[in-house]
Amino acid sequence: MSNPDYQQRKAFFDQLLTIYGRKPVLEALQDPAMQIYKLHLAESNKEDGIIRDIKKIAQQRNISIEMHERKALSRISKNGKQDQGVAADLQLTAYQPSTVINKETLNKAARRYIALDRITNPQNMGMIIRSVAASGIDGLILPRRGGAPLSALVIKASAGTLFRAPLFYCDNLAQELKRLQSDGAQLCGLSSHAKQSVFDTQNNASQIYILGNETDGVSKEIEKQCDFMLKIPMHNGVESLNVAVTAALIAFLGNR
Amino acid sequence: MSNPDYQQRKAFFDQLLTIYGRKPVLEALQDPAMQIYKLHLAESNKEDGIIRDIKKIAQQRNISIEMHERKALSRISKNGKQDQGVAADLQLTAYQPSTVINKETLNKAARRYIALDRITNPQNMGMIIRSVAASGIDGLILPRRGGAPLSALVIKASAGTLFRAPLFYCDNLAQELKRLQSDGAQLCGLSSHAKQSVFDTQNNASQIYILGNETDGVSKEIEKQCDFMLKIPMHNGVESLNVAVTAALIAFLGNR
Repeated sequence: MSNPDYQQRKAFFDQLLTIYGRKPVLEALQDPAMQIYKLHLAESNKEDGIIRDIKKIAQQRNISIEMHERKALSRISKNGKQDQGVAADLQLTAYQPSTVINKETLNKAARRYIALDRITNPQNMGMIIRSVAASGIDGLILPRRGGAPLSALVIKASAGTLFRAPLFYCDNLAQELKRLQSDGAQLCGLSSHAKQSVFDTQNNASQIYILGNETDGVSKEIEKQCDFMLKIPMHNGVESLNVAVTAALIAFLGNR
Repeated sequence: MSNPDYQQRKAFFDQLLTIYGRKPVLEALQDPAMQIYKLHLAESNKEDGIIRDIKKIAQQRNISIEMHERKALSRISKNGKQDQGVAADLQLTAYQPSTVINKETLNKAARRYIALDRITNPQNMGMIIRSVAASGIDGLILPRRGGAPLSALVIKASAGTLFRAPLFYCDNLAQELKRLQSDGAQLCGLSSHAKQSVFDTQNNASQIYILGNETDGVSKEIEKQCDFMLKIPMHNGVESLNVAVTAALIAFLGNR
């Protein structure tokens, strides 16, 4: 299991994101910035307008096309009800395991990351990815499960920036944050009940800002591990901000 | 037409926002923070569960109830197809004509406003209102027409902050911006093509930041009037940010 060839292939396949549906796949094919590894089609598709277009663009772009039985395609898309007989593997070049962030990375310079703890709304997820990519902060740390999956909805809400954003995935966020903390990162949880302002907590350490679920915030387990709990100061009796807005404020306003 | 009594009544009615639909009206009634001037019901409504609840809460809160013929109610809601026989006039205490922002306001201290030029997506509109309210900047300037109307969708996306946000309405935004400029405000248009960064243009003048339409940005007419065109600097080849994110960054910029 640990031979280098396997590790390399695993890393390659970990960078693949499968999207499905005729419109989303056509749009991905039409965007030259999107790297597409493979196009999957069901043999049962009729050769009508949009399927013909999809095939034509894939051929022009030299993307390999695989034909499948209807059931096999459902296993690839993992959504037979909505895939419309079409799926594509997208290659996210900036999608890496969070284990690449290590002691050396964290101590060489003051890095800044945002970690997402169960953000479930795809619209929010896409907007956060877009702001992270645009801000130039060091990255977004995402658990593979427990949040919105990187679906076509997320891609759309990210305005295509999903393919350029520095994304780091992990399996268990709480454990991975503990590891990153012991490797030198400060953990800063966001909470509207916190006393300290996010704008007053700039220092020269590497920091990971943790944004929690839209309804119940950062989970208790992670909150206990945090070095700081921070808030965005608010006026006019407003109690909370949209989580995508909070992410943008941290990503853009912190590092100047 | 210019007698003081008329002016006062006009100012009062200008603060009213009519919402409609059983669920939105019920939710408004259940929120003690919402000031409701009047409840309007169609005589044709059956006295079923939700209508009974709506009436009961209105009576408990001492809100006057007016009964109307079905057609008259459609004229009040301005949406007979979706009003479900129910409408309510909400009173926005922080909703004022932009003409109250004058030479004195603009020159006494450095004020900061955001103006919206044809923002059409209600989700964006609501998020912008929420960020403006939370940030504590001086206000949001909105033309009455040409953007998303302050509908139930906007109220929802604003997470109820519409009722606390300092909103200033005008009829013609381009003309009103010209007037505000001659009264002492700097006009700063946002554009991803601009050369100057919004983060480098802090000064002690009163400033109005103008955010343009989701697709085509600030209109040519307004761009010509601007003292500065500014951008949010972006990384990773990202070309634009969500307009609600841009608004939040500008609104909170002053707070740090």
